[in-house]
Amino acid sequence: MKLVDKSCVEFTNVLASKAAVPGGGGAAALVGALGTALGGMVCNLTIGKKKYAQYEEEVKQILDKTEKVQKCFLKMVDDDAEEFLPLSRAYGMPSNTEEEKAEKDKVLQEALKNACSVPIEIVRTSYEAIKLHEALVDRGSKLAISDVGVGVQCLRTALISGQLNVIINISMIQDQDYVARVKDEVDQLVEDGTKIADKVYKQVEAVLLK
Amino acid sequence: MKLVDKSCVEFTNVLASKAAVPGGGGAAALVGALGTALGGMVCNLTIGKKKYAQYEEEVKQILDKTEKVQKCFLKMVDDDAEEFLPLSRAYGMPSNTEEEKAEKDKVLQEALKNACSVPIEIVRTSYEAIKLHEALVDRGSKLAISDVGVGVQCLRTALISGQLNVIINISMIQDQDYVARVKDEVDQLVEDGTKIADKVYKQVEAVLLK
Repeated sequence: MKLVDKSCVEFTNVLASKAAVPGGGGAAALVGALGTALGGMVCNLTIGKKKYAQYEEEVKQILDKTEKVQKCFLKMVDDDAEEFLPLSRAYGMPSNTEEEKAEKDKVLQEALKNACSVPIEIVRTSYEAIKLHEALVDRGSKLAISDVGVGVQCLRTALISGQLNVIINISMIQDQDYVARVKDEVDQLVEDGTKIADKVYKQVEAVLLK
Repeated sequence: MKLVDKSCVEFTNVLASKAAVPGGGGAAALVGALGTALGGMVCNLTIGKKKYAQYEEEVKQILDKTEKVQKCFLKMVDDDAEEFLPLSRAYGMPSNTEEEKAEKDKVLQEALKNACSVPIEIVRTSYEAIKLHEALVDRGSKLAISDVGVGVQCLRTALISGQLNVIINISMIQDQDYVARVKDEVDQLVEDGTKIADKVYKQVEAVLLK
């Protein structure tokens, strides 16, 4: 059974348990899916409304993208769990002889890169979804503007949480070119993404407090 | 069927739809539950470990609290939806005559206060759960420290999102004593809570980047 097919209560309970999966990565992906869904909801509440007819086509395009991004996030909840298991197995490999040590090291390094791929993708996808909320904040129905605010806060959390999970994995990766490349990309996306998320949130607040 | 008994995929899909519930309030409560569950997971990964024996009793107490808080958050997902329906009905009441207007106003004002009670509770509970993560960051297993970071980011989002939903509701409430009282409490909890959450996150980052 997929993790995302568990009920919200069950998922939360297994998250709280000492079970190996889901962990912070899976939770981040689910929070990203919820944030993106709120963006989608705002699109659905805007489309067809006369007052927002001028944005209709753009909002439909945003909805099309949120639907795809939401699916990606939900898929990553289980992807993250699947990549964790080989990593866990690699840690358990014997390392008594030089041959065993070398073999364990090789398997572990590959498993670390694979495990790292999901949180990198969480960061990229969160950034993309934050950009969708940036486009939506001026075009979506004002009746649902608070949901743009909640959505973008969820995505800010998914973005930062993805980065935390990248940091854990790359700290043990020996391939320094790979580490530098990943770190550069992720740090930049987090820096830019949090700035955009905070700007969108401030726009929401300004409308609500007017 | 309760919203929290839906699978994660179903909940996300109905959130994205134009259905009246769940909305931003329910999403905020679920994200709060996920954040709290991560704190609980860190407790469960710490309890019984020799290295952390000195914190065992404190961590058990934190776990006891995260379990209660997690249940409260999950309950609030559905509570938020239940309070929304009478509000939606009140908006739909006729207001053609003076009597109808007066009656609608009375029902609406009460429904607004009821609807406001859940996001106020989301703010309070998020603050409480952030304080639990503050206690946990120095006492929990260092192997799971990134999960404290993800947990506290989720709770930061729940806190701020609760506030957004309070703002929408109180903007239409006429009882200015009530509005001032709620605003004072919520603003203070959000100010203090985000500061603590950011401090905890920085502690996590410092350990991971060491």
